[in-house]
Amino acid sequence: MASNYEEALIKHSEWRGKLRVEVHSPLNNRSDLALAYTPGVAAACLAIKENESLMDELTWVNSTVAVITDGTAVLGLGDIGPKAAMPVMEGKAALFKRFAGLNAIPICLDTKDPDEIIRIVSALAPSFGGINLEDISAPRCVTIERKLKEIMKIPVFHDDQHGTAIIVLAGLINAMRLTGKRKEDMTICVSGTGAAGSSIIKLLYDYGFKTIYGFNKFGIVSQDLKENTDFLQDEIAAITNLDHRHISLAEALTESDVFVGVSAPHLVSSTMARSMKKDAVIFAMANPEPEITYDEAKEAGIRIVGTGRSDYPNQVNNVLVFPGLFKGALAAKAPQITERMKMAAAEGLAALIATSDLRDDYILPDVFDERVADCVAQAVIDEVHRTVAV
Amino acid sequence: MASNYEEALIKHSEWRGKLRVEVHSPLNNRSDLALAYTPGVAAACLAIKENESLMDELTWVNSTVAVITDGTAVLGLGDIGPKAAMPVMEGKAALFKRFAGLNAIPICLDTKDPDEIIRIVSALAPSFGGINLEDISAPRCVTIERKLKEIMKIPVFHDDQHGTAIIVLAGLINAMRLTGKRKEDMTICVSGTGAAGSSIIKLLYDYGFKTIYGFNKFGIVSQDLKENTDFLQDEIAAITNLDHRHISLAEALTESDVFVGVSAPHLVSSTMARSMKKDAVIFAMANPEPEITYDEAKEAGIRIVGTGRSDYPNQVNNVLVFPGLFKGALAAKAPQITERMKMAAAEGLAALIATSDLRDDYILPDVFDERVADCVAQAVIDEVHRTVAV
Repeated sequence: MASNYEEALIKHSEWRGKLRVEVHSPLNNRSDLALAYTPGVAAACLAIKENESLMDELTWVNSTVAVITDGTAVLGLGDIGPKAAMPVMEGKAALFKRFAGLNAIPICLDTKDPDEIIRIVSALAPSFGGINLEDISAPRCVTIERKLKEIMKIPVFHDDQHGTAIIVLAGLINAMRLTGKRKEDMTICVSGTGAAGSSIIKLLYDYGFKTIYGFNKFGIVSQDLKENTDFLQDEIAAITNLDHRHISLAEALTESDVFVGVSAPHLVSSTMARSMKKDAVIFAMANPEPEITYDEAKEAGIRIVGTGRSDYPNQVNNVLVFPGLFKGALAAKAPQITERMKMAAAEGLAALIATSDLRDDYILPDVFDERVADCVAQAVIDEVHRTVAV
Repeated sequence: MASNYEEALIKHSEWRGKLRVEVHSPLNNRSDLALAYTPGVAAACLAIKENESLMDELTWVNSTVAVITDGTAVLGLGDIGPKAAMPVMEGKAALFKRFAGLNAIPICLDTKDPDEIIRIVSALAPSFGGINLEDISAPRCVTIERKLKEIMKIPVFHDDQHGTAIIVLAGLINAMRLTGKRKEDMTICVSGTGAAGSSIIKLLYDYGFKTIYGFNKFGIVSQDLKENTDFLQDEIAAITNLDHRHISLAEALTESDVFVGVSAPHLVSSTMARSMKKDAVIFAMANPEPEITYDEAKEAGIRIVGTGRSDYPNQVNNVLVFPGLFKGALAAKAPQITERMKMAAAEGLAALIATSDLRDDYILPDVFDERVADCVAQAVIDEVHRTVAV
């Protein structure tokens, strides 16, 4: 890892920024200037003033996403501030372009006040087709995203919450294709109930997985355990552990078909994995060291294993979802990203792998599978049209 | 003009945005991803966290400018709102790239509250190397820019105020080279005391022109005429019309060497122009119809005439200044754009025309003279270094 870090630093200093703005309209002579700028540009302004929807046709807005952070939860580095967050936001913006052809602008905000972030982002609305929130600490990120979804008429998406959730759902859909299990019958343990964990729990629940247990550093989440809680934990408690059991993760795993980890390294031992049900599934996504390594899990008899790492099969990488999700949402001019659009994205991603190709070590497409973004986008577009049609 | 408008509309609809974001770092395989994004990107984040100034080396921020408007004074169209303003902001951003190689991001804000605009722009600071304010109505634009200059540590520049001022100064410097007049001896009338006019008056005064009269729709600006005034008019009154004369523009012109118009069409008649002093200069920049046409002014015996129009000599076009000014300010890492930097930019622009080339109809370089931006940038850099050295 150290040599990768050194090389990355050298590369960043060679690149001096991973993005460039380029001019798409010719500007070679006075007549070009008179069309793209004054006086001709006034025609485009007046057309939009008459009919706001012409913005999509006459400007870059509908193909442009803002990648916005306050720098409070950057990668695994924590609250490193908005300036130090910029390399990640540039990278994220580069992924938007590389994988979905969307323009993306990295914006690092010099404020941590949720109300102010909400005001700023909503004031930026005319400039962008969508808002990707990134690396904002929990539970503030949830408050900020929900409020923005309420007041904005363009898609707002906090990738750290929902990106992983959509991919986990896609993985489980394909795991069910392989194992023949039904979601109604399955038991799922989720370790980690922050931004990502809470979104995973909600999406799985909404999709139809009804037996879920959530665990955080205080143990199992339960409606009758009210210490160390916040509104997010209350929401999780309402849809998990419906019998209010006070059991450990080790105990819960003995009854479980699925373990999903977005928590801390090495929380799941080989013994714990071995105690899980037949044809079990583990998504161990703690970074850089997972809750249980791919090899340990496989040796313990887990049938399907995914991690966040690119050097093992079934990598859960958010780049599988957010580019296509935004591409679809913008193409369909969806005013927001709904729970149903997330499910459609998961189903689209899962369906990309043909039944004849599906294997225990290939339930998620490769990040560089060039079909991914369009497939996710099309699933999202179809869902938007279905909802509008209904 | 009508056919130009129609063509511009068609072109805008073909372009679907005049800008694109492109990826500058390779993203072709897993190892590229691991350098530009996780895990390698963490190295760049941590380096900046340790030493903020590394941002200039490791991100695109120091070559990226935000072009920000609230849509309240767009071109001559007035308060058309932030969405309808986007085509102009995209065009302006395109000019930044075309003429100075800088990345520029168009941002249209959905608020007209100066305090909120100030808060938003200052919160955006970590994301940009400089802020170009654009098409914000007066006198709000002055309040906003001044406050931002106070609280921000990166260059903030309201082009509508200062861009024209700098070019007018450059033009007058070259007019003095041609006529041999000295600034101490010259009398100047400025018609229009809004954003641009007030900045012109201040810059000319600071440069050493001491006999200036300002006119607006209520007549001459004077300290003893306190009706219909605002803080901007008070400031102008303090440095113009020092004898508190109550004269008309026509009367003032009979004593004047220079007329500068940023006001309304056809305010200056041939008779008025003819009454001016020998070797007079007129910059008539009302748009699209000037205070007096180029031809009328020349026929009235005015020696040097400039307008805002590209189809006549001596075009006063802001693109002569803002690209190079920002390029220089960012290269020199200037924390703000000072009055001295503006004067240096004017001198640099004026000096681009060699004495052997200087003519009455060639006192300002052509917009497409590829030397302009670098020449202005170098003058600004030299000024920053001079000031730091002192």
